Amino acid sequence: MYRFSDRLKDLNGTATREILKLTSRPDIISFAGGMPASECLPRAEIADITAALLSGDGATAILQYGKTEGYAPFVEQAAEYLLRLGIRVADDGIQVLSGGQQGLDLMCKAFLNKGDTVLVENPTYLAFLQIAKTYEANIVGVDADGDGLVLYDLESKLKRYAPKLLYVVPTFSNPTGKTYCAENRRAIVELCERYGTVIIEDDPYSRLRYDGADVPPLKTFDRNGTVVFVTSFSKTVAPSLRAAVAAGPPEAIRKLSIGKQGADVQSPALCQAIVAEYLRRGYFYPTLAKNLAVYKTRRDAMLAALDKFMPDGVTYTRPDGGLFIWATLPHGIDAAAMLPEAIANNVAYISGREFFADGGGANTVRLNFSSSDEARIDEGIATLAEIIKRKTGERRK
Amino acid sequence: MYRFSDRLKDLNGTATREILKLTSRPDIISFAGGMPASECLPRAEIADITAALLSGDGATAILQYGKTEGYAPFVEQAAEYLLRLGIRVADDGIQVLSGGQQGLDLMCKAFLNKGDTVLVENPTYLAFLQIAKTYEANIVGVDADGDGLVLYDLESKLKRYAPKLLYVVPTFSNPTGKTYCAENRRAIVELCERYGTVIIEDDPYSRLRYDGADVPPLKTFDRNGTVVFVTSFSKTVAPSLRAAVAAGPPEAIRKLSIGKQGADVQSPALCQAIVAEYLRRGYFYPTLAKNLAVYKTRRDAMLAALDKFMPDGVTYTRPDGGLFIWATLPHGIDAAAMLPEAIANNVAYISGREFFADGGGANTVRLNFSSSDEARIDEGIATLAEIIKRKTGERRK
Repeated sequence: MYRFSDRLKDLNGTATREILKLTSRPDIISFAGGMPASECLPRAEIADITAALLSGDGATAILQYGKTEGYAPFVEQAAEYLLRLGIRVADDGIQVLSGGQQGLDLMCKAFLNKGDTVLVENPTYLAFLQIAKTYEANIVGVDADGDGLVLYDLESKLKRYAPKLLYVVPTFSNPTGKTYCAENRRAIVELCERYGTVIIEDDPYSRLRYDGADVPPLKTFDRNGTVVFVTSFSKTVAPSLRAAVAAGPPEAIRKLSIGKQGADVQSPALCQAIVAEYLRRGYFYPTLAKNLAVYKTRRDAMLAALDKFMPDGVTYTRPDGGLFIWATLPHGIDAAAMLPEAIANNVAYISGREFFADGGGANTVRLNFSSSDEARIDEGIATLAEIIKRKTGERRK
Repeated sequence: MYRFSDRLKDLNGTATREILKLTSRPDIISFAGGMPASECLPRAEIADITAALLSGDGATAILQYGKTEGYAPFVEQAAEYLLRLGIRVADDGIQVLSGGQQGLDLMCKAFLNKGDTVLVENPTYLAFLQIAKTYEANIVGVDADGDGLVLYDLESKLKRYAPKLLYVVPTFSNPTGKTYCAENRRAIVELCERYGTVIIEDDPYSRLRYDGADVPPLKTFDRNGTVVFVTSFSKTVAPSLRAAVAAGPPEAIRKLSIGKQGADVQSPALCQAIVAEYLRRGYFYPTLAKNLAVYKTRRDAMLAALDKFMPDGVTYTRPDGGLFIWATLPHGIDAAAMLPEAIANNVAYISGREFFADGGGANTVRLNFSSSDEARIDEGIATLAEIIKRKTGERRK
């Protein structure tokens, strides 16, 4: 009956958001989400900070309208946080966001006309694919290997499509958990600069490192304003505060601000102030260290369970950090078609196909290990392995 | 250097947002904003509620990821709030928003293709014009008179343009302070239904009534899903909580949810929970009553100052509520060109031209009376009157 826009009329909800509704049942062992562990959320610290903020002199400024660009103490703390990642930005080089995802949306809003090309790693974060669809973009996947993007494939697509944007999650990628090496990062920045393609470097996960050494952000190789770096405190402080920032060249950041004026005027200052104070008081790094120990245990538990239960023909990544393991099932098993059976057996995951720009990945799954304790991880993986064995057996018959 | 999108490449910031940066100087008497009075913000109540929320059982749910549709206790309280306005909605007929403005953006996202027509009252809320521009819409103004929209003009434009959307602020309109009468509302709904045009009824102000009786929302005349009602707690609780909802037919609300998944995943649950508890505890109506007394005094002070100081040839509205008085200056005075002189004399306003879809209004100004006390209102209006007299004198020479 309604004359909806072309961008939305055939678009359904994202798999992660829709499955979140299903898997809020406590009997479900969910490997589907991408959430920090609820028991790792710093409730007491946030309660303490919030009480101080709302009884202090700054309370009025926190409740009243404020600048679209962001609440000044949060911008200041975010700048310091970025500096520890090796990223130095100008005063007008930061835009506060309502969650990192808003940065992806605003970047598309600022750059993409209908039909413009955006390059993504194949597979990539499914919500970015959804966003790019709402801007009616031409989404083209770039091949990747163990080092990062395959450079000759990237260059040939930069040449062929003159894309406006390249979107990457270079550290503990969603969905694969992969990290691009430093040389690959430098080469990506140089290539994109040469072809005039702006890079969205999405970094929700780099602080969640359990092994190995940090790799510098793409942004640190950027000399000419080619990279907009988007990072978020959703995974390291609390998701529902939606505290995140974009950092980049002022000319591009200004367009994000104008886009945000229309989209939602400003992010809630209370949420920004809480995270600012959390950083200022020095809660961030010690709490993170405690939480990393929890996540490392869970990653190891999932890898151990996969090693123990999965039949031959199932392969999976061994990520140094992040929230996900990426598994490839025996050829011919359709992970999306298998999902109802898994849910009937109280286990959920996201089928990998959702993450591919141009099809494929039918036999892949994304498994999140942060939201379940070791016993449930073991039980859930055992259940999944049974289902996969049954499917493999059926196919043999 | 950057290849920005057509929608943003020539778009500058909205006048209200840009002037907010200027007028944060305490020596400026600002009639430019549209903010509730800072001294009316319920700081103590919010501090109290927040402490209880963050120490209670629900704290984890408030900090963790939640549903895009909204935090359930807020949706429930919002439904009750709507019922008091005469609006009954289905369970899946509410979408939580990050500020009412997000509802306007998501409605455009859900309905407008490039070049589609959207009708607006002339003049209308300037941010809506900005939003519609980012969707590259054809924006057409509809004439208005003391009763509301001029119905024959509305119908002729419904016929001529087959617009996807009509946007109205029917109660204490921004910028004019005008309220449409009940008969006009009923007729608008019937006409739009007949022509298949969806109405965005934006209601940030109807609770800010100082005189007269409530007029039922357009939504109460809607029998067939023609109206999406957007309302916000920014003006009545606290702007920076960004707590707002859209209410309407589930099929349209579903598209807003899908649009919001991409835009920002979800609104902060903490902010939603604060407003939910503020309503549940019964703080809303008594605090509102106290604040209305403050605003009424300020409206009266501004009207008295206008009566006292303004020269012949200046006319202005006498609104029963809301936050704005709309003044028309003598023909030939350009309010935008006069603004730098006003600011040099420490007074700010928004030039009326910003609110017109199709030009005009050069000699109009929007004056906000909620943010200054009576003495400063008197002083600011006296200063403005002096400048206008000088301009009128110059023109006579």
